[in-house]
Amino acid sequence: MGEHIRIIEVGPRDGLQNEPAQVPFEDRLRFIRDLVASGIRELEIGSFVRPDRVPRMADTDKIYDSMRTGGLDIGDAKAWSLVPNRSGLDRAVAAGAKNVALFTAATDSFARANIGMSIEHSIKEFDGILQQLRRSGSDFRVRGYVAVCFGCPFEGKVRPEQVLRVIEGLLKIGLDEISICDTIGVATPGQVDQLVVPALKLLGKTSLANHFHDTRGTALANALRAVELGVRALDSSAGGLGGCPFAPEAGGNLATEDLVYMLEGMGFETGIRLDRLCEAGLRISRKLKKRQLSKYLQAHHSECQTTRR
Amino acid sequence: MGEHIRIIEVGPRDGLQNEPAQVPFEDRLRFIRDLVASGIRELEIGSFVRPDRVPRMADTDKIYDSMRTGGLDIGDAKAWSLVPNRSGLDRAVAAGAKNVALFTAATDSFARANIGMSIEHSIKEFDGILQQLRRSGSDFRVRGYVAVCFGCPFEGKVRPEQVLRVIEGLLKIGLDEISICDTIGVATPGQVDQLVVPALKLLGKTSLANHFHDTRGTALANALRAVELGVRALDSSAGGLGGCPFAPEAGGNLATEDLVYMLEGMGFETGIRLDRLCEAGLRISRKLKKRQLSKYLQAHHSECQTTRR
Repeated sequence: MGEHIRIIEVGPRDGLQNEPAQVPFEDRLRFIRDLVASGIRELEIGSFVRPDRVPRMADTDKIYDSMRTGGLDIGDAKAWSLVPNRSGLDRAVAAGAKNVALFTAATDSFARANIGMSIEHSIKEFDGILQQLRRSGSDFRVRGYVAVCFGCPFEGKVRPEQVLRVIEGLLKIGLDEISICDTIGVATPGQVDQLVVPALKLLGKTSLANHFHDTRGTALANALRAVELGVRALDSSAGGLGGCPFAPEAGGNLATEDLVYMLEGMGFETGIRLDRLCEAGLRISRKLKKRQLSKYLQAHHSECQTTRR
Repeated sequence: MGEHIRIIEVGPRDGLQNEPAQVPFEDRLRFIRDLVASGIRELEIGSFVRPDRVPRMADTDKIYDSMRTGGLDIGDAKAWSLVPNRSGLDRAVAAGAKNVALFTAATDSFARANIGMSIEHSIKEFDGILQQLRRSGSDFRVRGYVAVCFGCPFEGKVRPEQVLRVIEGLLKIGLDEISICDTIGVATPGQVDQLVVPALKLLGKTSLANHFHDTRGTALANALRAVELGVRALDSSAGGLGGCPFAPEAGGNLATEDLVYMLEGMGFETGIRLDRLCEAGLRISRKLKKRQLSKYLQAHHSECQTTRR
């Protein structure tokens, strides 16, 4: 069996949050259930942001209720939730979340626009969150997103040194994992080299993930380069759900099925069954009335239709 | 300036031929004109196949007429045309074609289904074609496509040794270049290694091209791996036009704009202006009433719309 690559499925959060259509709560549960049934072992199921600001992610606490009461059984899969600040953390803890993702950025402009804090301020806030979690005595896992690591809609090109400084700040407060994000999907593989090589030296293979968006079609090529460099954890979204708020019709997250197809084809092991994953992606895409499916889903869909004829 | 990578634009042939909509002759000319204006130096403008079998490519001889009479000026760009057999060659020579592409496959089933000959038969036919060209005394360039090098809709997985045998056969008769094609878009980067490394040893960098389809989203990742291995010529199609006759809704050729964006971002030099290339891709996509644009075109299109607002 080939070397294992961790896939952190972000469709139910980063995907659904950025889709124009809102799906009913029951369909969010079904999506999570479908993903787990395909073999997904880690997934981001929601976020504890203000529901008036991000209505798509309202009722994330109810997803945890469903897991507690048996309405949603994810077995021993790991459920992540995004927590933007301390009040979000209070809600997450109350809901029973054990794996939380924090969010900052490589530029102050993007951090301020998204979480209303400078980078420095956000790291202090995270420090407080981590101390609060440690005091609670429970077993928490914490990952941190660093957004716009390759380019920023406000500040343009982002230098690797900028990102590495943010990573060093996050390392000091003791996160379990840092996900280096190409939030607006501008990276090319040469930029991946420039950032991921030194980041791997700082973080090691077990604490670094990459998170690519496919806005310009380069997500899978960037993921390939990251894997070549030694990255063994990648965020992706079933059906390629998601998008960029600055370009409403543009491509979304790296599609999990494209990624799994490539990695398994290269002899890596993901533990994910591609046919079941496609069912999950097709079902939620229909609910969202998406015109555009990820490439692998289109091929799968056409084959299914052809077989049926 | 970075190392040069040759891009052979196949949109006007492999792209348009496989699109469900037929575009008027004038729009084919406009597409070629737009491509050349963007800096494309080599492009496949049509094919001399039977018009009753491939109606999209009828009137390819009239494109050559337009070049001769001044209606279409492509400067010193190189115009390629596909020639399936000797009668096609006679038409191509009569039209004034100087750069011809021949077509065979890595499996007998696919060769028979597409050109009505076994692989062996097709190589003999090519040999006759090359001798006829040499006798004419003119300066011809000849490239050969080898289709379904990574997987075949009839025979499934294709072993590298099968492809290498076909390449050796083609080398004996003396082609200028061989393009290794993933016709149904199934390859992953590990397969690219297995085939391209020995193929480069046989052919050398200057006589090998790769031709990827994006049916399962892997085209750009495969192109990246090919470039990492030393390939310096890639076929692609503006707007990602094209598709697979076996999966009507599936993705098309590797999109030229995604490829140029990645390569230029990595410091390679293509000579192509991305903004002009996008204009070409958007215009022909509108003519084809395509619902789905390539990723880079979508991003470009959204940005343009955003700027306009």
